[in-house]
Amino acid sequence: MSTVEIPGQQSTGSLIPTLPGSHYTDPTIFELEQSRIFQANWVAAARSSDLAKPGSFRKVDVGGESVLLVRGRDGGVRAFLNVCRHRGARLCVEPEGSLRNKIQCPYHAWTYGLDGALIAAPNLNSMADVNRDEYGLHTVSLREWLGTIWICLADEPPSFADTVQAAVTARLGDPDAIDGWAIDTLAVGRRITYDVKANWKLIVENFMECYHCATIHPELTEVLPEFADGYAAQYYVGHGAAFGEDVSGFTVDGSAGFETLAGVDADHDRRYYAITVNPQVFINLVPDHVIFHRMYPVAADRTIVECDWLYPQEVLDGGRDLDRSVELFHRVNQQDFDACERCQPAMSSRAYAAGGVLVPSEHHIGEFRDWVAKAIAG
Amino acid sequence: MSTVEIPGQQSTGSLIPTLPGSHYTDPTIFELEQSRIFQANWVAAARSSDLAKPGSFRKVDVGGESVLLVRGRDGGVRAFLNVCRHRGARLCVEPEGSLRNKIQCPYHAWTYGLDGALIAAPNLNSMADVNRDEYGLHTVSLREWLGTIWICLADEPPSFADTVQAAVTARLGDPDAIDGWAIDTLAVGRRITYDVKANWKLIVENFMECYHCATIHPELTEVLPEFADGYAAQYYVGHGAAFGEDVSGFTVDGSAGFETLAGVDADHDRRYYAITVNPQVFINLVPDHVIFHRMYPVAADRTIVECDWLYPQEVLDGGRDLDRSVELFHRVNQQDFDACERCQPAMSSRAYAAGGVLVPSEHHIGEFRDWVAKAIAG
Amino acid sequence: MSTVEIPGQQSTGSLIPTLPGSHYTDPTIFELEQSRIFQANWVAAARSSDLAKPGSFRKVDVGGESVLLVRGRDGGVRAFLNVCRHRGARLCVEPEGSLRNKIQCPYHAWTYGLDGALIAAPNLNSMADVNRDEYGLHTVSLREWLGTIWICLADEPPSFADTVQAAVTARLGDPDAIDGWAIDTLAVGRRITYDVKANWKLIVENFMECYHCATIHPELTEVLPEFADGYAAQYYVGHGAAFGEDVSGFTVDGSAGFETLAGVDADHDRRYYAITVNPQVFINLVPDHVIFHRMYPVAADRTIVECDWLYPQEVLDGGRDLDRSVELFHRVNQQDFDACERCQPAMSSRAYAAGGVLVPSEHHIGEFRDWVAKAIAG
Repeated sequence: MSTVEIPGQQSTGSLIPTLPGSHYTDPTIFELEQSRIFQANWVAAARSSDLAKPGSFRKVDVGGESVLLVRGRDGGVRAFLNVCRHRGARLCVEPEGSLRNKIQCPYHAWTYGLDGALIAAPNLNSMADVNRDEYGLHTVSLREWLGTIWICLADEPPSFADTVQAAVTARLGDPDAIDGWAIDTLAVGRRITYDVKANWKLIVENFMECYHCATIHPELTEVLPEFADGYAAQYYVGHGAAFGEDVSGFTVDGSAGFETLAGVDADHDRRYYAITVNPQVFINLVPDHVIFHRMYPVAADRTIVECDWLYPQEVLDGGRDLDRSVELFHRVNQQDFDACERCQPAMSSRAYAAGGVLVPSEHHIGEFRDWVAKAIAG
Repeated sequence: MSTVEIPGQQSTGSLIPTLPGSHYTDPTIFELEQSRIFQANWVAAARSSDLAKPGSFRKVDVGGESVLLVRGRDGGVRAFLNVCRHRGARLCVEPEGSLRNKIQCPYHAWTYGLDGALIAAPNLNSMADVNRDEYGLHTVSLREWLGTIWICLADEPPSFADTVQAAVTARLGDPDAIDGWAIDTLAVGRRITYDVKANWKLIVENFMECYHCATIHPELTEVLPEFADGYAAQYYVGHGAAFGEDVSGFTVDGSAGFETLAGVDADHDRRYYAITVNPQVFINLVPDHVIFHRMYPVAADRTIVECDWLYPQEVLDGGRDLDRSVELFHRVNQQDFDACERCQPAMSSRAYAAGGVLVPSEHHIGEFRDWVAKAIAG
Repeated sequence: MSTVEIPGQQSTGSLIPTLPGSHYTDPTIFELEQSRIFQANWVAAARSSDLAKPGSFRKVDVGGESVLLVRGRDGGVRAFLNVCRHRGARLCVEPEGSLRNKIQCPYHAWTYGLDGALIAAPNLNSMADVNRDEYGLHTVSLREWLGTIWICLADEPPSFADTVQAAVTARLGDPDAIDGWAIDTLAVGRRITYDVKANWKLIVENFMECYHCATIHPELTEVLPEFADGYAAQYYVGHGAAFGEDVSGFTVDGSAGFETLAGVDADHDRRYYAITVNPQVFINLVPDHVIFHRMYPVAADRTIVECDWLYPQEVLDGGRDLDRSVELFHRVNQQDFDACERCQPAMSSRAYAAGGVLVPSEHHIGEFRDWVAKAIAG
């Protein structure tokens, strides 16, 4: 069992409180979170590669809104509310697909360009007073970074650099460190979607700490022995959890994975980094691949988690077997989500009315708690 | 493609707003509608022929209440709240059936006549102070017209003539016009019940306009070519949409239907009339049959629609094949309800918070909107 | 048909009201009942024998809380909220089972003794400021009586003698009368769990009166002919309903049951006693066995009823056929619960807005109504 050096660890030993139980069950608080957190912040909505070519579209549910992602003829991706401006029909009901040059409402045939502009409608020319510029689709702000499409439903989105990119930097300690994995060049080797019967914050809190690792993650602690001590990688700025000495790769049985990514230097090789980007992204960096989670809360007690395993295109083209590589974190996910589902029903107990407690190695969850509380306070 | 004369068409070209999205999703508004619209107005509850003989009963859910329709020994139909006056048991739980001389509660055997009077109960004679006149079933107002049983849950129902009959007259332009179809003499050839996952007002609004006809109703616009222009028959007082020149009858393929009804004169032959009676009846008149819709909202996002295809008894007795006749409007129904279900989820979008817009050919929906808004304002 | 003597019967003949319909449907009232009735009173949670040996546990849902019953190494049974003090995970999710010396949370391995004390947690020793005495499991008050485990979630439970035991005495007229059945020595011969789609108070009210017996309980009135008159056994203090002259035992066909229990004297033989202990216990005493119901409301319109048929151990050991014995009250239960489910949907009718009426033979239900109303008034 290896020992991890603990730079700057606080260990006053005192316990601090979590959020009250009602924050995990109350539909009113959930709606506040949808509007003040999930609509107000940048959220990862898809991989850029999910929209393969002009006309490709993808539907995603964020913050209670159905959002349509569309790649235009000019190659750019745009996001719109998936609602016709006329009588409110859903423009697209399939999860993804391909359009020709236009987005046509199937109810009354109002027709929009791939850029959202209203370009036609039956009898439109006879509606003299109608300014068609006013009736384009509602646009949603969009950024692409790390090969990921990020959207923000706010009228005035917060700074992408100060929120999303700052979160990554705060974790890795260096704004350029993430570049080593060249995530935008990686391709989706496997995608698994989990339907978790738990509040999204239980999932974030679970992801942020490793106090539970020894109890529920036997495979993970075998590969990353320091996790058995209960300190999550993200507890220390810039720290990556070291592979065990007899571990060859980040796989379910510790056997060799694939070649280390070209941009990953020796300092970052044989190490595991975990990043949380509030409110709904988790990124795991390992030498030969990246695991990227996107969370979509659908109710106070239910969250959809979409997880991509990303590899260099040549690994996929080579037909290499991904199973042992994917299986490790798939098991971790299942173990974690089982734990979250086990907590959810107790959130309404009077035993949890004032919340639970965070031990010293979970203290950083207190920052997430404060971030949430401040956000929903408005 | 024929062209329809447009008497008095307003075409300022401006768009006017629909109801706000919350009116299609908010359970509180739905409850207001149940009490202030569906309990306050006359609603069609069944065909008179559904209660074939003395003792026949039928259960119908209107405005949140279970109502029992019963044909008495005297041949008259009466309506009662389906609740025993003693401890509240449902008197009948089957959708329809036959009673003997009485309505007996299966819990404690309180027994009512087919006229709703309390006629017996165990030990009733020993309850000296009990005035049995006070404990008859709660009566619901009832009228029969067009072979249809109409009920009203209000203590003081509005004038039947000024509401139901006036709506028919306002559409056809002449109070006697409806008599041509002799609807009370027709029999139910086919009944189809639809369970629609949409707010009832989306269904009314859909029925009222034909701007969508060209997009979603290929069979209907084939039979009624003017519908391709987007103007609904009910847009003009007294106007019936003309059959296409090569159309033989109101059937799914335009082939011949049945003999024109005896009372339908040449002015009304080869034409289609649609009537909306607020809040829940749609009637379609064609030369050889009548299509009669009754709507029963059950939740903000769910409505049961019961549709009867009515023919002369001799058509049914003759064993004639109804399939092509029924199939035309059955397809229209499916196409319409699909469209409504496509709109329902978008009603909660912020894109629809202030509602959508009505184009000029939909302007008359604005009157329905105002009727609803005024009704629920109380 | 026998006639029952009616000591002190009130028969003014007037009707008195039940609770208003909303008390059977309103989720807010249901939550009040959960906290002010089911958390505030002693409730039967299990048979003592359900926890067979040290380490046996059983999970029960009472008043919205998941409670864990555990038999300790010392042989005593204790009750705890089924919530880990750390992050709120359910300690046990199975309905019952067996533990070794400890209760260990499967999330982060916080570990409690069978007495609820916190005895270990990873890194606990390094948390200098943590007083482990403060972090034991939340204890729930517990009593054993009649071979039954009774729990109370209140911080200061009411007197067990003044509530549970007083209810039994009030019914039988003598505090020692119940001892004749030696219920704590009986064993569970059969357990049937019913999932009833009705408010718990409809079930209590049904159990309290026999005005419905003639209508829905043909087998029961055959065995207890006086029930056909509509007066429940519990209408008169100390009265037991007499078996019919040609009835040999309390079985579905009136055939012989088992030997009369040793402690049941001649005054109580061939009689049936029914006891209601508010808010959730019904006990039926017959010469050769005892039927014990425990109710667990889960929603305004849904209640779980667990029913035990209790016999002397030697009857069970002898392999005697219990079917005719069990079948009688199993049918009564099904008949009663059907009736309750028939009433539930009508509780929201305006016909029941002010409630229904109680006839003279149901007047004692008025005391239950007042007890409930006072309890939820706080």
